[in-house]
Amino acid sequence: MSHSLLNTINDPADLRQLPRSQLKPLADELRAFVLESVSKTGGHLSSNLGTVELTVALHYVFNTPNDRLVWDVGHQTYPHKILTGRRERMGSLRQLGGISGFPLRSESAYDVFGTAHSSTSISAALGMALAARQKGEDRHAIAVIGDGAMTAGMAFEALNHGGVEDCRLLVILNDNDMSISPPVGALNRYLAQLMSGRFYSAAKQVGKSVLKAAPPLFELAKRLEEQAKGMVVPATLFEKFGFNYIGPIDGHDLDSLIPTLENIKQLSGPQFLHVVTKKGQGYKLAEADPVAYHGPGKFDPAVGLVKPTTPPKQTFTQVFGQWLCDMAEQDMRLVGITPAMREGSGMVEFHQRFPGRYYDVGIAEQHAVTLAAGMACEGIKPVVAIYSTFLQRGYDQLIHDVALQNLPVVFALDRAGLVGADGATHAGAFDIPFLRCIPNMAVACPADERECRQLLSTAYAQNHPVAVRYPRGAGAGVAPLSDLEPLPYGKSEVRRWRAGGESEATKRGIAILAFGTLLYPALEAAEKLDATVVNMRWAKPLDTDMLRDVAARHEALVTVEEGVVMGGAGSAVSEALQAAGLSMPLLQLGLPDRFIEHGDPAKLLALQGLDATGIEGAIVARFPELTAATAHKPALKVVAR
Amino acid sequence: MSHSLLNTINDPADLRQLPRSQLKPLADELRAFVLESVSKTGGHLSSNLGTVELTVALHYVFNTPNDRLVWDVGHQTYPHKILTGRRERMGSLRQLGGISGFPLRSESAYDVFGTAHSSTSISAALGMALAARQKGEDRHAIAVIGDGAMTAGMAFEALNHGGVEDCRLLVILNDNDMSISPPVGALNRYLAQLMSGRFYSAAKQVGKSVLKAAPPLFELAKRLEEQAKGMVVPATLFEKFGFNYIGPIDGHDLDSLIPTLENIKQLSGPQFLHVVTKKGQGYKLAEADPVAYHGPGKFDPAVGLVKPTTPPKQTFTQVFGQWLCDMAEQDMRLVGITPAMREGSGMVEFHQRFPGRYYDVGIAEQHAVTLAAGMACEGIKPVVAIYSTFLQRGYDQLIHDVALQNLPVVFALDRAGLVGADGATHAGAFDIPFLRCIPNMAVACPADERECRQLLSTAYAQNHPVAVRYPRGAGAGVAPLSDLEPLPYGKSEVRRWRAGGESEATKRGIAILAFGTLLYPALEAAEKLDATVVNMRWAKPLDTDMLRDVAARHEALVTVEEGVVMGGAGSAVSEALQAAGLSMPLLQLGLPDRFIEHGDPAKLLALQGLDATGIEGAIVARFPELTAATAHKPALKVVAR
Repeated sequence: MSHSLLNTINDPADLRQLPRSQLKPLADELRAFVLESVSKTGGHLSSNLGTVELTVALHYVFNTPNDRLVWDVGHQTYPHKILTGRRERMGSLRQLGGISGFPLRSESAYDVFGTAHSSTSISAALGMALAARQKGEDRHAIAVIGDGAMTAGMAFEALNHGGVEDCRLLVILNDNDMSISPPVGALNRYLAQLMSGRFYSAAKQVGKSVLKAAPPLFELAKRLEEQAKGMVVPATLFEKFGFNYIGPIDGHDLDSLIPTLENIKQLSGPQFLHVVTKKGQGYKLAEADPVAYHGPGKFDPAVGLVKPTTPPKQTFTQVFGQWLCDMAEQDMRLVGITPAMREGSGMVEFHQRFPGRYYDVGIAEQHAVTLAAGMACEGIKPVVAIYSTFLQRGYDQLIHDVALQNLPVVFALDRAGLVGADGATHAGAFDIPFLRCIPNMAVACPADERECRQLLSTAYAQNHPVAVRYPRGAGAGVAPLSDLEPLPYGKSEVRRWRAGGESEATKRGIAILAFGTLLYPALEAAEKLDATVVNMRWAKPLDTDMLRDVAARHEALVTVEEGVVMGGAGSAVSEALQAAGLSMPLLQLGLPDRFIEHGDPAKLLALQGLDATGIEGAIVARFPELTAATAHKPALKVVAR
Repeated sequence: MSHSLLNTINDPADLRQLPRSQLKPLADELRAFVLESVSKTGGHLSSNLGTVELTVALHYVFNTPNDRLVWDVGHQTYPHKILTGRRERMGSLRQLGGISGFPLRSESAYDVFGTAHSSTSISAALGMALAARQKGEDRHAIAVIGDGAMTAGMAFEALNHGGVEDCRLLVILNDNDMSISPPVGALNRYLAQLMSGRFYSAAKQVGKSVLKAAPPLFELAKRLEEQAKGMVVPATLFEKFGFNYIGPIDGHDLDSLIPTLENIKQLSGPQFLHVVTKKGQGYKLAEADPVAYHGPGKFDPAVGLVKPTTPPKQTFTQVFGQWLCDMAEQDMRLVGITPAMREGSGMVEFHQRFPGRYYDVGIAEQHAVTLAAGMACEGIKPVVAIYSTFLQRGYDQLIHDVALQNLPVVFALDRAGLVGADGATHAGAFDIPFLRCIPNMAVACPADERECRQLLSTAYAQNHPVAVRYPRGAGAGVAPLSDLEPLPYGKSEVRRWRAGGESEATKRGIAILAFGTLLYPALEAAEKLDATVVNMRWAKPLDTDMLRDVAARHEALVTVEEGVVMGGAGSAVSEALQAAGLSMPLLQLGLPDRFIEHGDPAKLLALQGLDATGIEGAIVARFPELTAATAHKPALKVVAR
């Protein structure tokens, strides 16, 4: 398809010059462009095909960026990016140095609020609307939020506040009945009722006929009349929160969208527009399977996704999913809990095989954690599968409901460390410091797939809360054993001794203490430097026996972890050394004190100096006298830290 | 009033033996006992006077503890404690070694879930109900939650899940139109409508007449009829979530409560009972001013609260409140945000003087933080006042919305460190580790009242997020200056040099690096030991120039902070030393890796070895050779760490 119309739009101001009749062809070009672009770069597809018309309509009716447009989650903003001057940069999407897959304030004046975690948009837009009111500035603030994101408590907190504030806030519910996992919970059931009821048909009619012809305060008048009659039509949930509810309308029909938005622009007080869209709209394959096309890699649009000919490496996510099924088979008490991440957390098979012990609670990390606490009180054994970065949402519940009561809940933390294309918002960089400071918590860091399964079994066997953190994707490729044997709790293992290190009683050379999957590059570096390497396995409790032993046999220690250095596992080592009255040189390697951008994970790790070369280089730079004899004198490497 | 009836109740089983006619006299005795008891110990009053009849009714109708009763927040559980075998221990309430002011699993089998932070009860009770279903156990799980607590998103997440689960869950909304601060938001407005509408009068009538006479499925029948007629009565918000809504009924009328609860016991699926109570019920002074009697100290019930004759010491809370008003006067951009803690955070005067710039968002820490982020994007300068322990609820928002976007939001963290009578749930023990690991964040730790004001001004002057943490109550008593001058950002000051420390270039003796109010006991200890004392002021950024200088002049360092040692400011010092290639003996003093019970704050600090004697003793024990000449050889002190 030609992009002749789209190519003329370098800015929403260009868009607003178009006659209304051109918007439909533009939307068609935009949809084709999105499909073509994502098929080349990978990225989010279904959600972006679903927001094409809504994006066109919003930028057409509202005066962006003066009017503030906040996209919840933000992975549906490719049409928005394309229309706001980033069309030609779409080829660099989610790549190192390229544009982000989410809105980013530093990227464009049209990205007024960075998003990625769900359900922040109403709070942010309300903040902007209240700021405008305070400053006497005449602008709208608009939050576009999906039905999945509406289940998070945060969205309700914002509705509860927004409903009583007289300001120019518009909340648009983009109802596609499809978060990443299938929708769950009462709210979704309720929305389905709204859509199937006469509401929808009535509004559709209004949208198609009346609104189109004579721009209308018709609907408003109709509503007022209804209210005067004593609420014959039951008020929606959103009206009970103080919002003026309009909809549902067809979110792919520009002739509904544009007059409705123009109408809403004239109204005062908090407005709520219910828009119905379809994920994958316009691309048959994605319409048929929006989950598969939620975040595909590169593919040929004419063919669609194809099964790779060589099976991909087993991921940590799959290791967890298999372990969960195996342990569930063995222990009737096990339940699995996910906050709307069935696919991402590897729980599809568990759901199918153990439906009665599977709980998808919606995007509701807070509830997920305390629900687990309640179950654990009753002798049930909950496993809460949650991305490291999303556990930040359940932090208080982990402290107050789980750890304080010392309840045996297993937290399976996927996406620990850097995550690649999703970037800073999704990186699990902070879990070691924010978990290990909590009493009763334990934190395991498996080095590879086999150990991941073993440490999950170990965590499950404990009588207190344990988090097992593992990264996105595949690891060193060490196949898990089929049994469910635990490893010794809180114990590490030496993987490599420096020459003579095991037998000598003298302090000589360097020992690397590795936490997690960076064990493997650490081993590589150690080969070159003849260093001892300990696979620490546990950030908490720390294996202090091993630590004392290793401290006694080496002149310097190095810690390596895929997480921030500040307060991390390296600091745990430092605390334990000092508590034992030992002060010795310690080099702490890990993530720096800044947010890391998106890009290829291996490249990003190398940039942080966390590949084998980087680890070796950092050790040589810090301990030249201890490494002079052994080091391969690598070319000096600039390490951005 | 005699307690002759109450004295026979050592267990709810005794209660269930009583004839119905005895329950009212029992409730009267119970109310009198609560008043008498709290007047002697201090503690929560208004809320407990409001739950007397509800507590009697719940234990009478349900088979506790086999039926699970979860009290949200839990400060309204004194009647529950008195009826469940703890009558005679009420004199030890909230004191060291005494019973807790909140439900505590370790205290009683009737305290099935520990609470204190708001809005956890529905999740916990749902977890228990689902566990019972899975185990095939026939029991009810009941959550009693206030209208204030219902505004937190977490409660909605739980409703959203609970509404689609077929299990024996009963949510009781204890609607007293009174959280600690006055109620806010759309939900409260909605509840007021429910109560004032015909619903209430109808239900009242049902409760008073029909239910009393012939135990009834009357109400149910009425509802079914209404539903058959096509919902003439608009469905409540809670019905939209899938709950069967019953109420509102008078929560002080046992003749309404008991038949209604007995009725509900027979129903299946998620039930929602709306009960209306009055905080302070039965004690005129508390009814008239429930806020003042929310958590009074000791008082004479016949007289009520009296103004102390000597004005109490200025608290850090008051210092913050005054600073906020002064800064607001000077800077029109300032707004103050509180999640339902106007009184506790010292914002009453600010609210009165700057109503247009004051936002109480309800119990909604997540929303509070992201609202601030939205405002900060627009050039507004938000100050979010939040207890350290409650910031745990807004942790993800702080990371994802504020820090990642590097927005200038000031977090005023009250109740940092131990909090005394409220105990472990309210202690602000973890903020230094969980904040300092986040890029772009800064964390200030004022040593006294004057510095608190100065560091608030400093924080406000920065162009990035800054948290200022200060403890509950009064400090050393250093009067704040009236100006709004900042201190140098990130800079510390030497408060005491060891003999010759300032002039000598040699390494000798000990330097104590104090973070926050423990500076003062550290100075006392240093006098005895002739140690240098640095008032560090900032846990992040660390004053590394000062650190290097001090490290060069001393043989050993000691860090002191009122927060957990794991990952805390002491570890920041350790990281900075190692990063500078310095390894030297370091003693990290702070809170241990366990939750600290309730009790007198000074005693608790001393028990942790964080008073002057404890600090001195710990230094002598760790560095005997460095302190032999100077130490006053204190009697050996057992430090429980």
